[in-house]
Amino acid sequence: MTLQHGTLKTVAGGVTAPAGFRAAGVHAGIKRKRKDVAVIVSDVPAAAAAVFTTNKVQAAPVQVTREHVAGGRLRAVVANSGNANAVTGPEGLADARRMAALVAEALGAAPQEVAVASTGVIGVRLPMDKVEAGIAKALAALGRSEDAAAADAAGSGDGNAGSGHAGGSNGDATANGDGHGNGDGPDTGSLAAARAIMTTDTVPKEIAVEFMLKGRTVRLGGIAKGSGMIHPNMATMLAFLTTDAAVAPAALQQALRRSAQRTYNRITVDGDTSTNDMVVIMANGLAGHDPVEADDPALAVFQEALDYVNTHLAKAIARDGEGATKLIEVRVEGAPDEAAALQAARAVAGSSLVKTAVYGNDANWGRILAAVGYSGIDFDPATVDIWIGDVAVARRGAGVAFDEAAASAALRRPEVLLRVALNAGDAAATVWTCDLTEGYININASYRS
Amino acid sequence: MTLQHGTLKTVAGGVTAPAGFRAAGVHAGIKRKRKDVAVIVSDVPAAAAAVFTTNKVQAAPVQVTREHVAGGRLRAVVANSGNANAVTGPEGLADARRMAALVAEALGAAPQEVAVASTGVIGVRLPMDKVEAGIAKALAALGRSEDAAAADAAGSGDGNAGSGHAGGSNGDATANGDGHGNGDGPDTGSLAAARAIMTTDTVPKEIAVEFMLKGRTVRLGGIAKGSGMIHPNMATMLAFLTTDAAVAPAALQQALRRSAQRTYNRITVDGDTSTNDMVVIMANGLAGHDPVEADDPALAVFQEALDYVNTHLAKAIARDGEGATKLIEVRVEGAPDEAAALQAARAVAGSSLVKTAVYGNDANWGRILAAVGYSGIDFDPATVDIWIGDVAVARRGAGVAFDEAAASAALRRPEVLLRVALNAGDAAATVWTCDLTEGYININASYRS
Repeated sequence: MTLQHGTLKTVAGGVTAPAGFRAAGVHAGIKRKRKDVAVIVSDVPAAAAAVFTTNKVQAAPVQVTREHVAGGRLRAVVANSGNANAVTGPEGLADARRMAALVAEALGAAPQEVAVASTGVIGVRLPMDKVEAGIAKALAALGRSEDAAAADAAGSGDGNAGSGHAGGSNGDATANGDGHGNGDGPDTGSLAAARAIMTTDTVPKEIAVEFMLKGRTVRLGGIAKGSGMIHPNMATMLAFLTTDAAVAPAALQQALRRSAQRTYNRITVDGDTSTNDMVVIMANGLAGHDPVEADDPALAVFQEALDYVNTHLAKAIARDGEGATKLIEVRVEGAPDEAAALQAARAVAGSSLVKTAVYGNDANWGRILAAVGYSGIDFDPATVDIWIGDVAVARRGAGVAFDEAAASAALRRPEVLLRVALNAGDAAATVWTCDLTEGYININASYRS
Repeated sequence: MTLQHGTLKTVAGGVTAPAGFRAAGVHAGIKRKRKDVAVIVSDVPAAAAAVFTTNKVQAAPVQVTREHVAGGRLRAVVANSGNANAVTGPEGLADARRMAALVAEALGAAPQEVAVASTGVIGVRLPMDKVEAGIAKALAALGRSEDAAAADAAGSGDGNAGSGHAGGSNGDATANGDGHGNGDGPDTGSLAAARAIMTTDTVPKEIAVEFMLKGRTVRLGGIAKGSGMIHPNMATMLAFLTTDAAVAPAALQQALRRSAQRTYNRITVDGDTSTNDMVVIMANGLAGHDPVEADDPALAVFQEALDYVNTHLAKAIARDGEGATKLIEVRVEGAPDEAAALQAARAVAGSSLVKTAVYGNDANWGRILAAVGYSGIDFDPATVDIWIGDVAVARRGAGVAFDEAAASAALRRPEVLLRVALNAGDAAATVWTCDLTEGYININASYRS
């Protein structure tokens, strides 16, 4: 069973598009001027699943959320930017628990029903007075769930491009309490939450889709943030997903893990894996159909919608990598198996030389072949074909005469496709990354303060 | 048996410091203005050994030199910069063989007694007319071996800093034939050869040492080039070593392999492994002692001198990485075994976030700990201590109050030490890298032409 053509459509509202979800994002003063505390709440308890960073150094919120999601049920996610609450010892762990407890108390839920996420500078304690005030402010700004999607759609136009680059000048934070407490726009809605988890992201990232599942119209929404922070540190990736579909926790976990492998785990900005990466999904079942269990054929339909949403968010993260000017899609095909294709694609996407060549619109296919060469896969260079966009630049392991102007034009596009055919099998894999520019250096060489 | 304190001293002359070696470097027109063909010749047949890139894509000269060195005997090395002769098919292989044959013919040697190396743009055929003329010119410039060291010492001052940054303006290449055929200085000697293998290197790299071996005074010299090229492409690493010690080929190969593991394989600039990397050593035995075999305790003395020379050249390469402003030494200690220490040190040295933080003089120890976290080694973050220079910045996995000014001062030095103690054993490893700057982007984003 798969999604029928035309049955999946994008809708406005991000994480508040599904029934029964509310969201807010406010300025609490952890960052100087911009929104920094987000909450996403389900009106009713939701099945929950999550995937986390593989870094051995795991931030306090990762440890707490792992514990909480193990129960399979969440009412809310609370997140802050500006401080990662990582390597902060037992005190940091207590701070993360306190964030969950405050939200739980306000909702009349158990602390274990709240997921916590943080992103920002590591090794520094959270300013808990500000965090606590920010959580209270965010909860007050949640609004009614039936208004959320409408408010968000009105605030953001198409629900993604929004009011443009958040990195632009917004002036000082103005007085709070009117629901428009800062230069980032309204505090209520999905876009507010998307803005409140941004670090060096230049645009908020959100999406929502609607599709048919077990005879009902269901919705799935998500927000995400990518690489870097204003006080530069880790390239933390956070994504929060909501759906009014009914999916059992075990099935939800299985679908999320598979989807993360195909999407978030196939993007790379700089090869650094954060201490704070986290993807959390809540499925509150308000669409009213029977819960989808792991052996239900309908899970494939849900999976397809989930992959669509996560692919969108993952590509948005790669496109908005620190200093990036374009999205690079690396596709390796004709591999003996998917693992080899993925390994080769990751090497190409991770190559600083490839990424700078794309930045410079330089059809330097030798760097692409060389990256496959050191990827560790077993292959014969003499059978490899390479394309930049639609321009064939190497065939059977050697350069071919090609139109430099056409290749350069393919490289000047906002989305650049690098395609490598190993001609050694039927498997393929795609990885997304961005170009490497002076902007990356400028962002990351700055002082922490 | 090890080197006694004070018995190893540096001397001038680079690869021509040992008895019976001559070298030259000329401008052949592969590059626009700068020297691009080098030859190093031993007056008598020399025992030989080499190590090569692990990239699956191996340039034609790598394939040819691997064949030739298998015989254990060389008379000469010929190398060019400006073109890597990589992924050039059977024609490229024939070109590499032709380079060896031309030098062999002039010396009255077998083609198998000549090693070939190339570095530069890949996927483009060598301009063989220019290469052939350049080889003839270089052979003519070799001079007499007894004059070589003196000429070189006179030309370069301390034999390393030389006449300063080769990246400086040198004006147009002037008329040739007078032995000072271009703005890079004289064509005769080690420094000329060191200049002729440079790509985006900003300084030539050479060293020579003198030490006692089996009762004789012996010398060991070397030249090397590092990352990048004028027509930017691979970060190829080449090193050529000469000694008048007598070392049997098997012992020489063993010592070189060990030394490369400890030196060249412990530097990283950008993680890209070239198709052309090569280290070649020739030991002509003119010092007159009995050959050192693999089971001779004297091999340890030779090994120590070899490691000294290769460490010097490897650090010079890291220090002169593309766009680099400083050398970074990453030392991981207290590891359960050396492999774990090395793996962790490589992750830290390879982290773009760490390298940009060092560039920005930012004591961002969280990035260091996070890199250890994703290195793949098994460790407990709660036992880790971290120092920047002499400044302790983290203890037992958490930040400590430290003097930001002192840490920043430690980061402003031309050589920055990042030290990580895992407190989980007695093993240690050191890796060298450089900071990541706008210069790297500028060099590598340029068009190939």
